[in-house]
This record gives sequence, C-alpha cells and structure tokens, in this order.
Amino acid sequence: MKTIGIGLVGSGFMGRCHANAYSSVAGLFDVPLKPKLKMLAEANPELAKEAARSLQFERFTADWPELVNDPEVELVDITAPNHLHQPIALAAIAKGKPVYCEKPLACTLEEAKTMRDASESAGVATLVGYNYLQNPMIQTAREIVQSGEIGELFSFRGVHAEDFMADAQAPYTNRLDAEQGGGALYDIGSHIISLARFLVGPLCEVMGMQSTVFTERPEATNSKQMKTVKVDDQTHFLARFENGCSGTLEAS
Amino acid sequence: MKTIGIGLVGSGFMGRCHANAYSSVAGLFDVPLKPKLKMLAEANPELAKEAARSLQFERFTADWPELVNDPEVELVDITAPNHLHQPIALAAIAKGKPVYCEKPLACTLEEAKTMRDASESAGVATLVGYNYLQNPMIQTAREIVQSGEIGELFSFRGVHAEDFMADAQAPYTNRLDAEQGGGALYDIGSHIISLARFLVGPLCEVMGMQSTVFTERPEATNSKQMKTVKVDDQTHFLARFENGCSGTLEAS
Amino acid sequence: MKTIGIGLVGSGFMGRCHANAYSSVAGLFDVPLKPKLKMLAEANPELAKEAARSLQFERFTADWPELVNDPEVELVDITAPNHLHQPIALAAIAKGKPVYCEKPLACTLEEAKTMRDASESAGVATLVGYNYLQNPMIQTAREIVQSGEIGELFSFRGVHAEDFMADAQAPYTNRLDAEQGGGALYDIGSHIISLARFLVGPLCEVMGMQSTVFTERPEATNSKQMKTVKVDDQTHFLARFENGCSGTLEAS
Amino acid sequence: MKTIGIGLVGSGFMGRCHANAYSSVAGLFDVPLKPKLKMLAEANPELAKEAARSLQFERFTADWPELVNDPEVELVDITAPNHLHQPIALAAIAKGKPVYCEKPLACTLEEAKTMRDASESAGVATLVGYNYLQNPMIQTAREIVQSGEIGELFSFRGVHAEDFMADAQAPYTNRLDAEQGGGALYDIGSHIISLARFLVGPLCEVMGMQSTVFTERPEATNSKQMKTVKVDDQTHFLARFENGCSGTLEAS
Repeated sequence: MKTIGIGLVGSGFMGRCHANAYSSVAGLFDVPLKPKLKMLAEANPELAKEAARSLQFERFTADWPELVNDPEVELVDITAPNHLHQPIALAAIAKGKPVYCEKPLACTLEEAKTMRDASESAGVATLVGYNYLQNPMIQTAREIVQSGEIGELFSFRGVHAEDFMADAQAPYTNRLDAEQGGGALYDIGSHIISLARFLVGPLCEVMGMQSTVFTERPEATNSKQMKTVKVDDQTHFLARFENGCSGTLEAS
Repeated sequence: MKTIGIGLVGSGFMGRCHANAYSSVAGLFDVPLKPKLKMLAEANPELAKEAARSLQFERFTADWPELVNDPEVELVDITAPNHLHQPIALAAIAKGKPVYCEKPLACTLEEAKTMRDASESAGVATLVGYNYLQNPMIQTAREIVQSGEIGELFSFRGVHAEDFMADAQAPYTNRLDAEQGGGALYDIGSHIISLARFLVGPLCEVMGMQSTVFTERPEATNSKQMKTVKVDDQTHFLARFENGCSGTLEAS
Repeated sequence: MKTIGIGLVGSGFMGRCHANAYSSVAGLFDVPLKPKLKMLAEANPELAKEAARSLQFERFTADWPELVNDPEVELVDITAPNHLHQPIALAAIAKGKPVYCEKPLACTLEEAKTMRDASESAGVATLVGYNYLQNPMIQTAREIVQSGEIGELFSFRGVHAEDFMADAQAPYTNRLDAEQGGGALYDIGSHIISLARFLVGPLCEVMGMQSTVFTERPEATNSKQMKTVKVDDQTHFLARFENGCSGTLEAS
Repeated sequence: MKTIGIGLVGSGFMGRCHANAYSSVAGLFDVPLKPKLKMLAEANPELAKEAARSLQFERFTADWPELVNDPEVELVDITAPNHLHQPIALAAIAKGKPVYCEKPLACTLEEAKTMRDASESAGVATLVGYNYLQNPMIQTAREIVQSGEIGELFSFRGVHAEDFMADAQAPYTNRLDAEQGGGALYDIGSHIISLARFLVGPLCEVMGMQSTVFTERPEATNSKQMKTVKVDDQTHFLARFENGCSGTLEAS
C-alpha cells in the first residue's frame, strides 16, 4: 500500500485528533494512501519530544521550517496557533507540499487571500479543517436541500453553541488572545459559517454583534491573578445569502 | 354574580377568539366578573349583524364610537385593524372604560405613547393581547429564569416562526398593508418581543433585517391579479438587553 | 339556524369541557346544528343547580332519567362516572336519542357490547369521547400512515403518560374506584388504545402488566386518613395488530 | 510506559473498532498501560493475514488457541461469532489472561454462568462489551438517577431501535443464525438490558414478544436465492425491576 508522510505542527487537542485519525484511517476506510507519522513540531524541544512519543511520530522538532523542509514530510498539517497558519502554509506551498490547515484559516482576510492565491498559483492541494462538513448528517442535509425536497430556502438559523467559555472560572488561553486570532467568532463561528455556506451557498451581507461576557479570567486554573479578555466569547449575526435566503447565526 | 358588559370592535379571527373566551371563562375559571356580550362593531351593518348573531352579541353597530359610548358597554375590546387601535383606545379611555387591545398596540411609537399616556393619566386599566405571556409554559419558564436555577442569562434566542406568509399563493390581506401596520415584525414580532421582555427584561439595543420573500401576491384567493407587497414577511434581528444578555430574535 | 337540544349528565372536568364546546362551536366552525344547553343532570339538586347556572344550562335535575325523557333534550351527553355510562346510554338509545359518551365506554366488555348492540339495533348515532382522534396532528399522522409514505408499519410505540396519579399526595377519587371503572388503563389507556387502532388498525393479541405505585392515598386533600387503592396507576402492555405490526403501549 | 499485549479474535466491524481504540487510547487518554497489537486470529489464514496487515497487528493465526497460548498475548479480546465466546473465554481464563468479550456474552444462560464462574474462581479480570455504559451521557443519566434529583423511578422506557434488519433486502448473515446466538434480542437487546440494569437496577420479571418481520432473506447481496430467518428482528418486552420500577424495553 502506498504511503504518505505526515508532518504535524502542533499537538494540542486538534493535533491529537489529527494524529489519531491518521493512525486509524487505513484500518477503517478504503483509502489510497496510508499515512505515516513522520515528524511532529512543537513550540520547544521538550514538548515536541513528549508529544512525538505519545502520538507515535518517528521524529520531532521545535523548528517548524525544519519539518516543512524534511524530505520525508509529504503533507504539512497545521494545528498551530492561528497566527502561525499563514507563514507555515506559505512555506509548505512553496515546497509544493499539500497543506491541511485548521480553522480559522488565518487572522485576517488579507492573510487568507495570500494563502489562497499561493496555493492556486502553485497548484497545491489544500484543505481547511471544517470537519463538520464531512459529517454524514450534514452531507444528508445538503442533499435534502439540493434535491429541492424542502423547497427554496428563505430562512436559515445556524447555532454553534459550544459555550466553550461559558464557565467564568475557565482560565485564559491563547484561544482568547486577539493577537493569535482568538475569540468565539474565529474559533467557533468559522464552523457555523462553513456550514451555512455548504448548505445554503455564499453569503453576501452580514451584520453582527459581539459580546465579551467575562471580561477577565484567571491567568491559569485556580489562579487569583486575572487577565483581561479582549475578544468575544459569543457572537450573533444576521446574514443574507446570494440566493436571497436570510437568517441568523451564532457562535459561543 | 357580578357582570361586565363587553363591547368588541372587530370580528375577525381574534375577535372570534375573544368572544369565545368571554363566553367560556366563567364556566371554566373562578372569575370575579362574568362577561356579557353587549355590542359588536364591524366595518358595515351587514357584517356587524351577521357577526353579532354568530358570536351571540346582544346588539351591533357599524359605527365604533356608538359602541364606545354605549352605557352598557363597560369594557372596550379592540380587534380592529392596527391603524384603528389608537383612535378607538383613546376614545374608550376618554370615557373611562378599560381597554383590551390586540397587538401590535399601534402603528408607530408616537401613537403607542399617546395611548400609554392617556391611560396613565386617566387611571384606566388596559391590557395588550400578548396571550402567550399567560401560557403556563411561559410562566414556568419565567419562574425558572427568575429563580436563578439556570444562572445568569447571557444569550437569548427567540423564534416565532409562524410562517404565516410562507405560501406564495396566499392572497394579499390587510395584514400586509403598510398603512394598516401590517407585516411580520408588527404582527408576529410583537409576540416574540413581548416574550423576550417577559423572560429576560427590557431591551436596550436592536439591529434588524427585514425581507419580503414574496414581493407580490394574488389580490384574492386564486386571483390572477397581483398586488405588490411592501411589508416584511420575515424579520430577523439582533438584540441587547439591559441586563447584558444578547441574542437573536426572528418572526415570520 | 337549526338547533339541537343538549342534555348533559355530569359536570366534572369533562362536563365543563363539553359545555364550553357546545357554547363555542357555532361561532368558530361551520356546523349544521347549533347546540342549545337544555338540561344538566348531577348527583344531587344543589350540585345540579349550581352547575347549570355556571355552565348556562336552561334547566337542571338530580334524576338523570328525567333528562333522558325530557322532550327538549335531543342528544344525551354522558360525562357521569364510568359505571353509569351503560344504563344512561341504554335509556337514551331506547328513546332514540343520539348519545355522546365519555371514555371508557363501560366497565366491562359485556356492558360495552350491550351498548353497541342497542345502538346498532335502534339505528341511533353514537360517539365515544376519543377527542384526540379529532386532533389535526393525529389526523395528519393517519394520512401519512395510510398514504404509504413511511412504508409498512412493523413496530408501534404508544405512550400516554399523563402521570395523573404520580403525586403520592393526590387524594383518592372515584377515578381510583374499581367499582366505578377506575384506574389508569380504563381512564388513560382507553385513549392510547383508540389511537393505536386509529393509526395502525385492530389489535389481535395483548399481554399486560399493571402496577399500583401508591397503594394508599389520603381520603381527601391533606387528610391523614388513608384509603386503599385497588386499581392500577400505571399499565404497560405488549400488543400485536392484525396487520402484523407489534409494539408496546403504556398509560399512566 | 508499560505495555499490554493484545490478542484479538475476530476482525469484523467490532474487531476493527477495538483495534482502532487500542491504537488510539494512549495518545488520547492517560492510561497506565499502552496496548500493543500482538496477534490477530481469524477464521482462515488469508483472512487473518489481511486483517492483521490492515489493523497493524504484529502476527496472525487461523487457530485461536494458538493466540490464547501465545506468551506475548496478555489480554484476549473476543469479537468472534457469539457461539465461540464461551470456549475462547474459558481457554483464556484457564491461562489466567484477562478477557474482553463482546456482547451477547454467550448463547445460553448456562454458557454464561460457566464463564462467570470460571473468571471468579480464577480471579481473572473480565469485561463485556457494553460500550454504551461508558458513554458520558449515560454516566450522567446514572448520576442524576442516583442523586435522587428526579425522585424514585416508577417507569422505565428503553428503546434501542437500531433497525439493523429493517431493510427486507439486507442479506442473511450469521447475526441471524440461531445456532450462533443471532437475532435482535441477543444482538441489540443485550445493550438496552445492560442500560436498564445500569440505570435502574436488577430486573426481576420479564415478559416478551418476539417478531420476525422478514422470514426470509437473500443469501447474499442481490442474490435471488432466499434463506429462512428463524430469529427475531424485533423484540418488545415488559419488565419489572427489583426496586419496584416497571416498564417496557424494545430492540430491533
């Protein structure tokens, strides 16, 4: 069976999920390529070593360009913090390596456009981590919509209420760092927007309202030291779609 | 048992509902006053006569001021088209008679304020037809909220999707006449706003989006003659409440 | 408009519901006959007088045969305790008067058969109070089943969980008196059986399990005196239908 | 990290699930032992070889006793057809090796008792594959029940409607072979019974009804040759629990 060498940047929650999926996929599904866990990159050598061992990667590095340039790495998977998505992706694309990048794709529209343009110019395959689009339930929903069985869509209500920051005592993390593309809209809203586009089609107009329910949080679990939160922990917005449908979306 | 003489203006769907409720209430609930169906007003004598007979009112009129002034009419119930709410209510209040007025209360904020001010000055009891607030389910929801059992409210999602104009073939009615206070926001949105206020508290900021899905409709059932619709058949909006809660509301 | 004179036996919860429906129906629906509330029968004169006044019947009696024989009573409506259903119905049928009888129809299969046979011989119209069968939702469910849209029925799950005796402090009532046809199966189970028959078809085999969760109850609200309960407060049973479908039903 | 050598008998749907779980668990959870996929047994050498390769086992065999006796196999996992559960489990227990056996545990009560007795005598750890009991949702349900928050349980309704044989064209499989412990009650009912016991407690009385909706099925997909089905494709039953609760359960 042909294989593909995986280089994974990041070993947080999503990194572990991706590693697990690579390990399992060939035993569960009929796939043309069997993933090989070649190299893992993390922020420092200790973390990288420990994660590589636990997730069963062959090698590790604390220097992501080394991973991108490694000849055994044939696909670059980016689960690093959001502000690193663009530089890593551009480097991988420059090497002609396919990129699987977690959402949100980037921290700004401009960044995202450079990534899209680079991959299109280079003809490199890319995928953003909108995993819910692959859910059979959503695929079925889309088929129902596209079959016309439920008629034309006039109203859409999209709720991704993960409430991931609903606990006032949940400590500050880099998912709340504005510099790193944090906040509910980026983190969770990107999913519900991807679903809305997948099910209804392109959006043409939006109007939103962001809230920061808890404006400060413990620096770490049980810490008395508080840190100011500058990003949204919930976002609601109105949307119009190109096909005339309108509706509400929310993420938290 | 003491009685109260009812004067009802309007005999459409809500008029019939009110008449039925007046007939039944004393047999089903313990009420201090038994309603007597004294007089019904409609747009013309034929309609008024027929409605009075069918709904079992003692007398009828095609001239609502006559009803307001009738000494046997002790309460004025307004289920007339929306643009008539204000003049009828003001006349009844001027006579010191309690007013039960259907929603939406008025066609403009200014109209509504004159009604509120008049009733407050006159010390006359009034009620707007937000029937859902009386639903035991909603009362229970409010008790749950107020007990603190589910914590502080951060997000509210209010959907009143009656879809009353979802059928493209449904003919034009005065509920779609902008001059008469028509459209989904006035007709249906008033309910979900009343619930939001009842459950969460006063709103302080809103931002909305109205759509007219079907911009023309048959003048009458099966008519080929089309009439332009100028009001919304669905409205979505964002809201912030004074207590910091935020959310989405929609009506259709 | 033609009228029909109503004689109602019983003024409990269902009696009040029926009286209310008779008062309202001609104002809300297009019906060929307008009901007139002619006579109400109750267990004693005081109760009968008070109920007639509150429900707006013209006359009253404490002797139900008088009601059955009254020339102005053209339809006999039976909401009396279950053990009285048969004698009243047979008397009305003997007078050729249509009968509207609450469920359960009778206390034994034999009683029920005499009622059915009498009405068939006399050619008298009868109706049992399976009100849920008239619910548009159930009518729609039946249409869906009969259209074949959801295929052949293999399994049916019928739950009427009113839990009307779930409160251990709820006092003893004649709905719990075995002599009067009390218990969950008779009172509530009759509804879910009627629905099962309506939706799926005739049953051919059943096997059941009855429970008396609370074997004694206060004689009256807040009474310390307890009374033994001999009937079921919940019943579960298995059923096979003639068309091969099988399933479970429960009532409480 | 300490490891445990896994021997897996069977590579069907559940075998693949178990293999995947063994591969992933140490990367996702904090576990004291890391599973090593040592040997896979299947019905014949070709199948065994192919499954071992696909599921990444080190070695394979077509002779399950070899697997049980292999010194590197420290835990025997049985996902073989139901009638093989007992002999394999007894052999493993005799070697003092922990057993993880899929449900239904055995084909008869007697078989199951020999397995329980053997494991108890030998002091060998065992686990039956009631995976749903590990679901956090079910664990939470149990906590709610045990906390008394919802009061005493009087009625239980357990539905595991997988409808795994609802398609009349689904071909005959050994899950439908009575000799191999097939049928809905064994296959699916075992799950809902395990949940009922987990949530409510031991059952003391049952009364059931089994149906074979499709009495013959294609021998293989698209085959015209039909094979008689002798087991249930749906089972409904009534149950009483030792604590007085009663209810219905169904499996299909």
